[in-house]
Amino acid sequence: MTSNAKNILFIMFDQLRFDYLSCYGHPHLKTPNMDRLASNGVRFTNCYVQSPVCGSSRMSFYTGRYPSSHGAQWNGFPLKVGEMTIGDHLRTQGMDSYLIGKTHMRADVEGMARLGISPDSTIGARVAECGFDVFDRDDGLWAEGPDGFYDQQKSTYNEYLKSKGYGGNNPWHDYANSGVDDQGDIASGWMMMHADKPANIREEDSETPYMTSRCIDFIDQMNTPDSKPWLCHLSYIKPHWPYIVPAPYHGMYGKEDVIAPNRAESEKNNAHPVYQAFMNNVIGQAFRRDEVLESVVPAYMGLIKQADDQLGRLFQHLEETGRMNDTMIVVTADHGDYMGDHWLGEKDLFHEPSVKVPMIIYDPSEQADSTRGTVCDELVESIDLAATFYEASGGVLKDQLDHILEGRSLMPILQGQPLTDWREYVVSEYDYSMTPAAVKLDIAPRDARLFMVADKRWKFMHAEGGIRPMLFDREADPRELNDLGESTLPEHLAVIDLMYQRFNEWNRRLNQRTTVSEQQVRAMRGTSRRRGVVLGVYDGTEIERELMVRYEGRAAEQRLSLE
Amino acid sequence: MTSNAKNILFIMFDQLRFDYLSCYGHPHLKTPNMDRLASNGVRFTNCYVQSPVCGSSRMSFYTGRYPSSHGAQWNGFPLKVGEMTIGDHLRTQGMDSYLIGKTHMRADVEGMARLGISPDSTIGARVAECGFDVFDRDDGLWAEGPDGFYDQQKSTYNEYLKSKGYGGNNPWHDYANSGVDDQGDIASGWMMMHADKPANIREEDSETPYMTSRCIDFIDQMNTPDSKPWLCHLSYIKPHWPYIVPAPYHGMYGKEDVIAPNRAESEKNNAHPVYQAFMNNVIGQAFRRDEVLESVVPAYMGLIKQADDQLGRLFQHLEETGRMNDTMIVVTADHGDYMGDHWLGEKDLFHEPSVKVPMIIYDPSEQADSTRGTVCDELVESIDLAATFYEASGGVLKDQLDHILEGRSLMPILQGQPLTDWREYVVSEYDYSMTPAAVKLDIAPRDARLFMVADKRWKFMHAEGGIRPMLFDREADPRELNDLGESTLPEHLAVIDLMYQRFNEWNRRLNQRTTVSEQQVRAMRGTSRRRGVVLGVYDGTEIERELMVRYEGRAAEQRLSLE
Repeated sequence: MTSNAKNILFIMFDQLRFDYLSCYGHPHLKTPNMDRLASNGVRFTNCYVQSPVCGSSRMSFYTGRYPSSHGAQWNGFPLKVGEMTIGDHLRTQGMDSYLIGKTHMRADVEGMARLGISPDSTIGARVAECGFDVFDRDDGLWAEGPDGFYDQQKSTYNEYLKSKGYGGNNPWHDYANSGVDDQGDIASGWMMMHADKPANIREEDSETPYMTSRCIDFIDQMNTPDSKPWLCHLSYIKPHWPYIVPAPYHGMYGKEDVIAPNRAESEKNNAHPVYQAFMNNVIGQAFRRDEVLESVVPAYMGLIKQADDQLGRLFQHLEETGRMNDTMIVVTADHGDYMGDHWLGEKDLFHEPSVKVPMIIYDPSEQADSTRGTVCDELVESIDLAATFYEASGGVLKDQLDHILEGRSLMPILQGQPLTDWREYVVSEYDYSMTPAAVKLDIAPRDARLFMVADKRWKFMHAEGGIRPMLFDREADPRELNDLGESTLPEHLAVIDLMYQRFNEWNRRLNQRTTVSEQQVRAMRGTSRRRGVVLGVYDGTEIERELMVRYEGRAAEQRLSLE
Repeated sequence: MTSNAKNILFIMFDQLRFDYLSCYGHPHLKTPNMDRLASNGVRFTNCYVQSPVCGSSRMSFYTGRYPSSHGAQWNGFPLKVGEMTIGDHLRTQGMDSYLIGKTHMRADVEGMARLGISPDSTIGARVAECGFDVFDRDDGLWAEGPDGFYDQQKSTYNEYLKSKGYGGNNPWHDYANSGVDDQGDIASGWMMMHADKPANIREEDSETPYMTSRCIDFIDQMNTPDSKPWLCHLSYIKPHWPYIVPAPYHGMYGKEDVIAPNRAESEKNNAHPVYQAFMNNVIGQAFRRDEVLESVVPAYMGLIKQADDQLGRLFQHLEETGRMNDTMIVVTADHGDYMGDHWLGEKDLFHEPSVKVPMIIYDPSEQADSTRGTVCDELVESIDLAATFYEASGGVLKDQLDHILEGRSLMPILQGQPLTDWREYVVSEYDYSMTPAAVKLDIAPRDARLFMVADKRWKFMHAEGGIRPMLFDREADPRELNDLGESTLPEHLAVIDLMYQRFNEWNRRLNQRTTVSEQQVRAMRGTSRRRGVVLGVYDGTEIERELMVRYEGRAAEQRLSLE
């Protein structure tokens, strides 16, 4: 099921909560541009990421595979050489894939060296960049500490800022992500007490407008009569922290706009050990403080408002250049942000604000006219996008690429086709081996893994290492405050049993036989017999005569063994 | 736990049943050379291959990983680029790995092209040959049918035969694997009615002596003062079919040496559907015929006897060159051969004659003196060899390579160390998607998969695609004739439940996070904080002062946003 769209604009925000858009129901924050895209496309209300952490989630988006299939299960765990991505699959369809912004990709430098793949070659550059051709990569995390920079690469954004006159070695931090305090000193955005200050930067030079401008440059460069179809992954770092935003966005929202965190004292009682460890970490401790929420939430909202305005600017450019008519547009996020819910900050676990993301898809095709402005409540996974893009570009998933891509194409939903045999549950994974929780629980890295299995009612979590599961009944407990993982009620035990059945089924999935498709298996059957491997034959009468004929009635030229 | 051995000679026979060696209890067949190795080393009585089919089993031996981890789940399914093998791991220890004979490897040509890896380069050649440097590769399957040769490569053995004066295009078939019938015509070894004839070749030119000579050549070439340590994989095609052997071996055994097949009429009643389909296939039908067994079994025994004699020749050369003192020697097989047991021929399923293999390991080290001539009944898997070789060469498996290698080192067993926490069960897999059984059962390729979970008493088989399991109680039923997969006895249901628990645990294993070791995970913890990603900080008092100091007390050079 293809799309008439020639191009794909795949927009990702980092750490954007699904319910902080007005089309997803936020009461105070208005995001008219995202809403407009939703009114022209399909808005998915049950889209889950495959891992609620940047790197792992993104590798799933890009490979179309679960973390335990691609193996890059945490930030900085290199995506192994050979794992194919959207870029590889779309290139077979005559489409190029470009990157603008963040991937959080760490190249498998060792694997590349072992296989003799030079990072300077076209192939090597793609292998090191999730299969994308880089228009502008900037991960937007130019943090610096006693051991140096978090990101060892060169920041194009920092270079841009320097060219604009922002001083110092790291204007990303000193201007874009800091304010100024009463003493005239840099007020680092890493300290949340400064989140209410305006970032010390011209708004148009801050990260979200910069990336938007880069995308506009890209679209203009591609606007030639003979340009190939493209996918452009526009990947914003914001509203990811540091939580700080330039004027006027810093002042648009205040304390009164902070929604009371969704949390209950009862959650702390007999909490699941992993959940408990996350509640107790520095981030969890911070986000239970009112002053943190009052400072951070308005800044987070300002960042989203700025993002929406920039999308408006981008969409206008698409209109003006005609690209709105031939470009499929996706807006999504790599994961959410707890913002104090469940006594947590950041992402990491499987409550809705962390693991659910916004997903809006606009398909310009006529075939999609019937679904414009509709809302889809089906269970969707982030890995579905790769499958969707592949089908949209004219590729056939079934039996031809579904031995690699583990998601499902959303094209039938976008084009209003009846869904047959849709998934009954989604799966998400979280490897917390790198976190203080793993140290605290004294758990081996390989066992520091969590898995979510969720349908529309029940959300279940399995923990490796002999730790008990978690369970939420979202019908009785839509706010996910009451963990039933230790319930002894027969109904709950039956649900846990069902969830384990599903989880076990999922674990048995075929996911590494990536060199032979279902179609190829069928085509290869019987070929070895027709190439002479005729087993089980006593006198030749057992099988087709043509398979044996070459072995009969040929005189032996010599009789060597009897000489 | 290293070995003092400098080199490793890793000998594999193809389709050699464990119980067709005298040291494993064969009543008529004497294999004194294998027995002698066993009496100088350790003989393993419970060694299981990870898949009872050539290609998949071998890829597990070479990668040290289960088929569902490496993905090459059947003959001809390419091993994907990037999968590391023994060769890769030993090279990091300063050891080279050479191949003589068969691997059944099919290169991932598409993947290599995608990554720009030339098959002509050193790296490309290794990638295409399971990580080995090729001394002489010959898979020994020069079958030819209406669609051409099964194997598209060049046969070094065929070239050798031609150089020796054997005529025609394919002397492998016409001489080495055929006899001569009463009319003077070629009597193809593919037809089992000819298995009792002598192969039409000088014994010293047949495949097993040829490969042995090549190994002797190799040892001589390496016998220089400055030679690097090596692993040599000497991989014989025999006693794999065509079942035919040159004189005098063709006449050494007769009908009277055929052991009655281990089978019962009751096995046919309500047989498991997959087992039923294999019983009904051409091979199964053939091997229930007496004339087949009477013809094939003596030839098979002759092939093994020849193999043993050739090992005697090889071992003598090792003695003479001093290599017996500095070379670890392994003798094993990629799988067994039913030989009519359970109404089956070939391999494929999980009965003992198919899935269990001989495994004899000789370690010349002094530390292994205490175990010479001992027998080990522990549950061993073929993937243990890669781990063993790595440790023998001085590598440390635990936390450093066990994120890639899924087997366990046998070094503690070889050196008489106490075993702690040894495995309680073994797993084997079989993908039958390419077989007529899959067609007959009308099962999707991805569902045509079987899994064995076995401990010393119980052997359980799970079938995908909604087919019931199988179960044998080898204490009550050592001959595996009574399938309890449909038993409703509580004891059996409890065992099936336990086996599913184990199977599910195994399916959850971490097997794709191959770019980061356990040790590296531990070392990476906390590094991002020390590189400035300081999350959860409100005013800086929450975390170590040194992490925040660079963000404090620095005058803002400009106050741009307020201009």
